[in-house]
Amino acid sequence: MRAVVARQGKLTCEEIAELEPAAGQVLVKTLSCGICGSDLHALHHIDQMAALGRRAGSIGRGMDPKGGVVFGHEFCAEVLDYGPGSAKPLKVGARVVAMPILPGAAGMTSIGYSNDYPGGFAERMLLAEPLLIAVPNGLSDRQAAMTEPFAVGAHAVARAALDEPAAALVIGCGPVGLAIIAGLKAKGFGPVTAADFSPARRKMAERMGADIVVDPAAESPHAKWSDMGVPVNGLEQMMARAAGRPVKRAIIFECVGVPGVIQSLIEAAPSGAQIVVAGVCMDPDTIEPFLAITKQIDFRFVLGYTPEEFAGTLGQIADGVIDVGPVITDAVGLDGVADAFERLADPESQVKIVVEP
Amino acid sequence: MRAVVARQGKLTCEEIAELEPAAGQVLVKTLSCGICGSDLHALHHIDQMAALGRRAGSIGRGMDPKGGVVFGHEFCAEVLDYGPGSAKPLKVGARVVAMPILPGAAGMTSIGYSNDYPGGFAERMLLAEPLLIAVPNGLSDRQAAMTEPFAVGAHAVARAALDEPAAALVIGCGPVGLAIIAGLKAKGFGPVTAADFSPARRKMAERMGADIVVDPAAESPHAKWSDMGVPVNGLEQMMARAAGRPVKRAIIFECVGVPGVIQSLIEAAPSGAQIVVAGVCMDPDTIEPFLAITKQIDFRFVLGYTPEEFAGTLGQIADGVIDVGPVITDAVGLDGVADAFERLADPESQVKIVVEP
Repeated sequence: MRAVVARQGKLTCEEIAELEPAAGQVLVKTLSCGICGSDLHALHHIDQMAALGRRAGSIGRGMDPKGGVVFGHEFCAEVLDYGPGSAKPLKVGARVVAMPILPGAAGMTSIGYSNDYPGGFAERMLLAEPLLIAVPNGLSDRQAAMTEPFAVGAHAVARAALDEPAAALVIGCGPVGLAIIAGLKAKGFGPVTAADFSPARRKMAERMGADIVVDPAAESPHAKWSDMGVPVNGLEQMMARAAGRPVKRAIIFECVGVPGVIQSLIEAAPSGAQIVVAGVCMDPDTIEPFLAITKQIDFRFVLGYTPEEFAGTLGQIADGVIDVGPVITDAVGLDGVADAFERLADPESQVKIVVEP
Repeated sequence: MRAVVARQGKLTCEEIAELEPAAGQVLVKTLSCGICGSDLHALHHIDQMAALGRRAGSIGRGMDPKGGVVFGHEFCAEVLDYGPGSAKPLKVGARVVAMPILPGAAGMTSIGYSNDYPGGFAERMLLAEPLLIAVPNGLSDRQAAMTEPFAVGAHAVARAALDEPAAALVIGCGPVGLAIIAGLKAKGFGPVTAADFSPARRKMAERMGADIVVDPAAESPHAKWSDMGVPVNGLEQMMARAAGRPVKRAIIFECVGVPGVIQSLIEAAPSGAQIVVAGVCMDPDTIEPFLAITKQIDFRFVLGYTPEEFAGTLGQIADGVIDVGPVITDAVGLDGVADAFERLADPESQVKIVVEP
């Protein structure tokens, strides 16, 4: 079958071996699969990703950077065949989404970050039968493929302390930041300020429901706390509490993932802020603990989603609670993947490109 | 009056100006005052502390490192006189403790980290009248002076997620670590593992109630998670949850406060751990966010205490819920302060030395 293979920093369309579903596995045809920021990073830093994955016992831990890898973990697919002994819970031809993991004797394998199991930038994939979820009628392949990236947003929102009065700031409006804005709005949460240097991304943030958008080149996004009703320093907060007024807390979503951002947030955040770190920074980073201590900042480092969040996100997309349409800015075949990776570097023209083999 | 003045890295006994209580202030006689690890640090790094305090708008922010400072913020004192217009809520001669802050037009001043308001290493101090709390009869001056450092422990414990099944590991058994062990035990929480390189400190940790003590030179404290019933990796946790078993969470208290400890905890912590950072690290520190992300670690950076926690700690000491006796390892007069600062560098001989002017 045809697949786009990443090897030594290059993407090439190749013929690779056909797949055979083992017990508990399902052979599917890829219908639509989003390109993730992690794929862009992995193309050029696969050694680093494999080494970190090995240390963390997580994504890409079994990956040999010298072998070829077929990326793609944000997919909608069609059931073709089941492994031996299956009760075949869905009909052949059924459209499905699934969490991109395959359980095995040696633990979980990440579909799309493995030498053995190709991801969605291939004509066919093997998925885990127990993880299949049927796509409701009326939902397009492309929209269904957005379940995975938007589940990332739902998870980050679920991990944030939103049960008390709060206001949110989303730093970085790439796919993760946009999914978080959508997740906050799906919960009816506000106000939400979103910050990004790109005008196109700020416009996209508004379409996802952001109440205030800020160009950090023109103004610090932290200038908006007062407009959102969050007292900034500890003394102000203490006075408000002493006067019996409810004190709104600052919840900041870090969705950039490059060194220096966490420290810049520690410096600028209101006292008592919670910082949800959803941006995947793969390099070492420097912080000043004393500043975090004096402000009593909470951090929640987040990744992925639970099975419930994944299924819930598909439901929210199908029910129109979350409109994923605007973020899908282009679609390409397997021949167009290498070019699409290049084009995704420009935030003005693209947010999410889907691959349809 | 006599006081121990810190100036240019040296402590000297000097005569300083007498104090006059302004409106809202109380003149007190220092009865007993603990030497804090922050005092040891401030003696040699007062420039750094003042600069960080200014940036964070907190402790020591108004301090001129070139001027003299009288340290001491863990005190029990006796009421001598009130400022003008006072209703004199406690009798002259009453014994009191108080949070070591003085509200003023320009914000809070930290007693003991100020050029203007001497701390407890002086014969007399000015305190804030609304913050005075009477010391119950039967509680010694020295024990009452432990209210402040043990309130630090109570606060760190209150900020930890102890409402769900959990086990705790305390890294570093200096005064902060010991106060946290006492705070955990005062809540009936267990199991608690405590780690310190010093045999004397490990013995002290046991006296404060630690269930397991570990010498990190001999064995990783993280080897104890399984004994405490905490599944270490995400897959084990997922399997346990899927089987309907309650999953204990790892709560780690970082009480060392030197660069590198936070990263070592990120590397060694179980998936889903919460790390409460109570050690005050004043230098920049390097972390690997990717490891924290893949393990979905939470951090709570903590400092100080609330007025309720401060008063509650005094009550727990008075009621015998917390036995502070063991940690008070020596007492000196003002002439002995400089020597006591030196002796506190050795964890084998000392934990807390109180100054009794």
